[in-house]
Amino acid sequence: MNDHIYLDYAAATPMDPEVLAEMTPYFSEKFYNPSATYMAAIGVRKDLDAARAQVALVLGARPSEIVFTAGATEANNLVIRGVMAQYPDSNIIVSSVEHDSVLLPAREFESKEATVDAKGIVDVDALIKMIDDQTVLVSVMYANNEIGSIQPVHQIALALEQIRKDRRRAGSERPLYLHTDAAQAANYLDLHVSRLGVDFMTLNGGKIYGPKQSGVLFASSQARFRPQIVGGGQERGQRGGTENVAGSIGMAKALTKAQEMRAEETARLKELQNLFFDLLEKAIPGIVINGSRKNRLPNNVHITIPGQDNERVLIELDEAGILAAAGSACSASNEEPSHVLRACALSDEDAQSSLRFSMGRDTSERAVRKAVETLTNIVA
Amino acid sequence: MNDHIYLDYAAATPMDPEVLAEMTPYFSEKFYNPSATYMAAIGVRKDLDAARAQVALVLGARPSEIVFTAGATEANNLVIRGVMAQYPDSNIIVSSVEHDSVLLPAREFESKEATVDAKGIVDVDALIKMIDDQTVLVSVMYANNEIGSIQPVHQIALALEQIRKDRRRAGSERPLYLHTDAAQAANYLDLHVSRLGVDFMTLNGGKIYGPKQSGVLFASSQARFRPQIVGGGQERGQRGGTENVAGSIGMAKALTKAQEMRAEETARLKELQNLFFDLLEKAIPGIVINGSRKNRLPNNVHITIPGQDNERVLIELDEAGILAAAGSACSASNEEPSHVLRACALSDEDAQSSLRFSMGRDTSERAVRKAVETLTNIVA
Repeated sequence: MNDHIYLDYAAATPMDPEVLAEMTPYFSEKFYNPSATYMAAIGVRKDLDAARAQVALVLGARPSEIVFTAGATEANNLVIRGVMAQYPDSNIIVSSVEHDSVLLPAREFESKEATVDAKGIVDVDALIKMIDDQTVLVSVMYANNEIGSIQPVHQIALALEQIRKDRRRAGSERPLYLHTDAAQAANYLDLHVSRLGVDFMTLNGGKIYGPKQSGVLFASSQARFRPQIVGGGQERGQRGGTENVAGSIGMAKALTKAQEMRAEETARLKELQNLFFDLLEKAIPGIVINGSRKNRLPNNVHITIPGQDNERVLIELDEAGILAAAGSACSASNEEPSHVLRACALSDEDAQSSLRFSMGRDTSERAVRKAVETLTNIVA
Repeated sequence: MNDHIYLDYAAATPMDPEVLAEMTPYFSEKFYNPSATYMAAIGVRKDLDAARAQVALVLGARPSEIVFTAGATEANNLVIRGVMAQYPDSNIIVSSVEHDSVLLPAREFESKEATVDAKGIVDVDALIKMIDDQTVLVSVMYANNEIGSIQPVHQIALALEQIRKDRRRAGSERPLYLHTDAAQAANYLDLHVSRLGVDFMTLNGGKIYGPKQSGVLFASSQARFRPQIVGGGQERGQRGGTENVAGSIGMAKALTKAQEMRAEETARLKELQNLFFDLLEKAIPGIVINGSRKNRLPNNVHITIPGQDNERVLIELDEAGILAAAGSACSASNEEPSHVLRACALSDEDAQSSLRFSMGRDTSERAVRKAVETLTNIVA
C-alpha cells in the first residue's frame, strides 16, 4: 500500500491476498469452460456452484437465486430493466440518492424519486405514498456511497408487505418487489435477505476486497425478471456469457470474509470514525459533518468546509500523501455537483466544499490523526 | 495442463503466464479506481489508457474506438441493441451461423438470417440481396466457433461500400454498418479493421489466452450506437461500471501476443490440422470432415462419424484423457442439435454424431496422433 494514507475505500478496495489465492488456480490449470462436458470442466462447474452456494449461505438464499454479474452496475441495470420489461404498464419508485446505475435505468420507465431528509435518509412515509396500483418495483440502496447514510430498508420492506396483502385482498396480481443496492453495505451490514425483506439485492466484489467487475444479483425465486445479456444461456438463462469463474470464486471468498470480519471491523471503524469527527470538529472551525451520525456506515466521513474549494484541497492532500475524494469516483470527472448532496439540500457552493474520507481494513488511528492534521494545515 | 490432451481451445484457453503477470499488480498495489482524482489513480487510468491504445494499435483503430466489455457476449449484445435502438425503423441482417449472443439480440428487431453453404460459408450474393433501404446493420462472424469456417467479411464489406454509395447518391442518410464477431478469429486472422472494412468488431479475451469475461467492442468513430449498461459514465459513456483494470490490461497483452504469434501458430497448426484430417480419413471409414478445408481456422477439426453417438464417444475420450467437444460449450447443456450444423444442412442424426477438436498453443503432433488413435479405438 506504498507510503501514503488511502482513505478512498468506498471507491475501490485492494484485493485481499486470500481472495487472489483462491482465484489463481482458475486462471491456469482450472481454466476450463464450465459448460464443457468432460470431467475436468465439470470439476470447474462444481467449484463455481460451490461459490454460488457460499454466496447464498451468506445471504440466507438458495443457490439458484444467485446470479453472478460483471459488477454492481450490470446487476442494478439487470434488475431494473429486467423487472420493468416484464411488466409494461407499471412504474418504479427509487430514492433520489441512488447510484446512477439505478437512477438512469429507472428513468427509462415511468418512475418517481423519493426525497431524503437533510441527513440523506429516505423519507419512508413519502416513499410509501408514491406507491400506486401500478408500482411493481421499489429500489432503495442499503447504504449511500457518498455520505454513508444507512437507509431504512427493513422498514420499507414491512410497509411493502402490507401493501402486497392489500393488493391480494383486492384481487390484484401485480407484484411489488423491493430491491436494494448493497454495494457499499456488504462490509458492515447484515445481508440476510429474508431478515431484511428484499426480493433483489446487488453486491459488488470490487468494494469488498474482491476483484473489480465481479458482482452478484440476488433474485428471489418468487420474482420474475427478464435477462438482459443474452447468448449461451449461462446462469440458468439469466445472464449469458462464459462464466467469470475466477471472478465469481473471488467474489464468494471476499463476501464470506467481509461478513466474517463485519462485527469486528464495524466496532473498530466506529471508534476511528468518532475520533475522526471529534478531531475535525476541534481543529476546523465552521466544519459541517454531513449525513447521519447514527444511521451511518462506520467507514464514512463526509464533511463540508465552507469556503474551501474541494478540488484544490484534494490536490494538496494528495501531495501530502492523503488520498481522499470529493464524492463518488464514478462522477469524479463530472463537473456537475453531486445529486446526492443536492438531494440532502446542500447548496452547490457547499457541495463544492465537501470531502469524503472512506476508511477500510488498513486504516489506523495514526492515519486518521495524520489526515486530520494535514487537512487542518491545508485549510487553515 | 495435467496429463490429459486438451483439444477444446475454442471453448476456453488457459491464461498465458505473461498475461497474468501483467495483470497481477492491478489486483493489489495498483487497485485504485481509475476515475479517482489523486495521482496514484491517475497512474492506473494511464495504464488502462495504454492498454486501450495497445488494442487500438493491433486493430489499426483509434484508442477512442475501443470499448472494454465483460466478454464477447456483452460486446455482441451491445453493438446489436445499441445500433438498432438508435434506428427504430430499420432492420438487421445476420448470418444463420452466428453465435447466440448475436442471433438472439438480432431477433429482438426486424431481422433476416442469411444462409450458408454446406461448408458453412455465408452466401454473399444472397446476403446482399436481403439488404433493403431500411437495413442499418449487417453482422457476420469472422470465423465460426463450431466448424471453423472463415467468412468472406472483406467481400461483404466491399459490397456494402457500394450500397452506401448508392444510398448517398439517392439522398438517404441511413447508415449501413458492418459488424464482425472475431472472438474465434483473433489468434489466427488479420484484425486490422480498415483492411477488413468493418465498423464494429467483437473480441474475447477468454479465447486468446487472456482472462475470461474480458472483451472489446471496436466501434468506429463514424458509427453511432447507444450504450447498454449505464451508470457512472465509464468508457466515454459507452459502458458503465468501474473498469476491470486488470482484465483490460490482460486483454490487451493477450491480444498483442496472439497477433504476434499469429503467423507462426497458423503455419504450425495448419500442418497439425492436415495431419489430423489425414490420419482420421485413413483410420475411420465413412468419416466426414465438416466445413471448408480452405477457408478454415487452422485449429479447428470438425467431423461426423455416422452412426456414432457423440455423447458416448466424448465420455470415452474423456476417460482416455482426451478432452473434446460436441459443439460450442455455450450450448453443450442444450439438447437441441446445433443451429450451425443445421444451417450447413447436416441431418439431426449426423449432428449428433459430430465432434469438434480445437487445437491451441500446447497442441503437439504427439497429441494429435494420440487423439486419432484413441478415437479410432472407440469407434471401431
